[in-house]
Amino acid sequence: MIDNKINRVAIVGVGLIGGSLAKALRQANRSITITGYGRNTDNLKLAMKLGVIDLYETRLEAAVHDADLVVLAVPLQAMPEVFKRMGTCLRPDVIITDVGSAKGFVVEAAKALGSLFSRFVPAHPIAGTEQSGVTHAATDLFERHITILTPVPETDREALGYVDRMWQRVGSQTVIMDVSRHDRVLAGTSHLPHLLAFALVDMLTRNEQDEPFRYAAGGFRDFTRIASSDPVMWRDICLANNHAIRDAIGQYIDTLQRLDGYLEASDQAGLMKLFTEAKQRRDHYLAERTAMAGNHKRTQDETD
Amino acid sequence: MIDNKINRVAIVGVGLIGGSLAKALRQANRSITITGYGRNTDNLKLAMKLGVIDLYETRLEAAVHDADLVVLAVPLQAMPEVFKRMGTCLRPDVIITDVGSAKGFVVEAAKALGSLFSRFVPAHPIAGTEQSGVTHAATDLFERHITILTPVPETDREALGYVDRMWQRVGSQTVIMDVSRHDRVLAGTSHLPHLLAFALVDMLTRNEQDEPFRYAAGGFRDFTRIASSDPVMWRDICLANNHAIRDAIGQYIDTLQRLDGYLEASDQAGLMKLFTEAKQRRDHYLAERTAMAGNHKRTQDETD
Repeated sequence: MIDNKINRVAIVGVGLIGGSLAKALRQANRSITITGYGRNTDNLKLAMKLGVIDLYETRLEAAVHDADLVVLAVPLQAMPEVFKRMGTCLRPDVIITDVGSAKGFVVEAAKALGSLFSRFVPAHPIAGTEQSGVTHAATDLFERHITILTPVPETDREALGYVDRMWQRVGSQTVIMDVSRHDRVLAGTSHLPHLLAFALVDMLTRNEQDEPFRYAAGGFRDFTRIASSDPVMWRDICLANNHAIRDAIGQYIDTLQRLDGYLEASDQAGLMKLFTEAKQRRDHYLAERTAMAGNHKRTQDETD
Repeated sequence: MIDNKINRVAIVGVGLIGGSLAKALRQANRSITITGYGRNTDNLKLAMKLGVIDLYETRLEAAVHDADLVVLAVPLQAMPEVFKRMGTCLRPDVIITDVGSAKGFVVEAAKALGSLFSRFVPAHPIAGTEQSGVTHAATDLFERHITILTPVPETDREALGYVDRMWQRVGSQTVIMDVSRHDRVLAGTSHLPHLLAFALVDMLTRNEQDEPFRYAAGGFRDFTRIASSDPVMWRDICLANNHAIRDAIGQYIDTLQRLDGYLEASDQAGLMKLFTEAKQRRDHYLAERTAMAGNHKRTQDETD
């Protein structure tokens, strides 16, 4: 670890993200003790066997009471209860962070920490695959990925500095962002695309007779990859970032209706402009990403 | 070639698909002569240099008049003019085929062939990448991909048999399908996803300040890959398969509005049902694809 004072880490929720962070923290510092908390003993035993955690606890209080660092990596809808129960049993100098995809919701829930709310640093690593579960946890999951930190005015600067360095240490580029901006940007770049993929598969498979997948090319496969994501996680994100996501869906339907208007009018110029500009922006983005040293390999790996 | 009688092949439009088919036909039979037709001399010279074609012609009549097999691989909107001009200058025993993505439109245009309409076999190889141009042409582009043939009652059975064997010879699995069914199925599995990707990039980049791409994860990259496709090709597909695509857009907006209704009502069960079923169907499809011998590698390659 970058700070010697962090010896005991509690990972609350040992899945893909919690497990990957545990592995990456372990690689950064062999001497820390990592305790995994969860309700599923089989999963915790598996995490032990995989060397992801050193100890496990199925009682939250026992898992976190002496931790220097607590990382919440449970589904969003489980977070309010965890914050509520942790408020009374943590060390006063604890540092708490999370990996949730909707920050407004998590910050609101974290207020149940009471006086320890200032020790909580909201974080969101923009990493992951459509796979879930500790078996897919990888030490390098966060390498060359952005982690967004969304501190609030109450957030302790020392705690913020620690969490910032921690994410950098596991390979992330960190960005500080306002909570509401985070939720709006992610609604567009992550939450909406996932819902679009789920909706496409839903629509195409409603009439089974058409065997839509059979005649699908590679583009369709990539497009719908994220429809294989964890339904519980996405239900929770929909509930937690509800307003920003609904705004994005509304804007998207407007865009589709504009495109449909071009089709209705056989408007060649309108279609060309939309397609050409989208291609240019997308190609520009890809060129930038590829230019980021080493990044290309990583994003390739992600596709499977 | 599988039939000895095919000695001279004319590729009308030497881009990614036309060029790949030329290379694959060459591999199947070293003795054939392949003439490339196009309006861009630089592109034709490049195709010669790459060994994709043996000769080139910028006059259509000269390119096709003695051909045993003519393959149309120009953008859809260029096809009517090509059919019209070819009708008078082909051999009576010629076999004509195409690679267009919208078959109703092409079949209608092919009627300009007059008495040679029966020698035309409409075909659509479900292959390609977001890249275009002869430099990306690949001998194995069609391997382990489906090619859909959509003969009409007038189609000569001998010509159909030849084109069927030709696509199998270059590695495709062929499927015979009704023209209108092809256009409806492809509107859903190919045309709609491309438009969704273009629309997403358009929507997210309209407000440049949000730098949407910067905070995008791998899922977004895959999702929008197809927004880097050729704008001309997609404009043409929109015009050529207009009705089926508009039907698909309408159904998709309905699905999004249903999803938005679940969000509005915070309907956990509705969200879970939609996400779980989509994931199951998508995972099932992927498992089937992976089970197809050797297919996994190919679809992986396609992602970049």
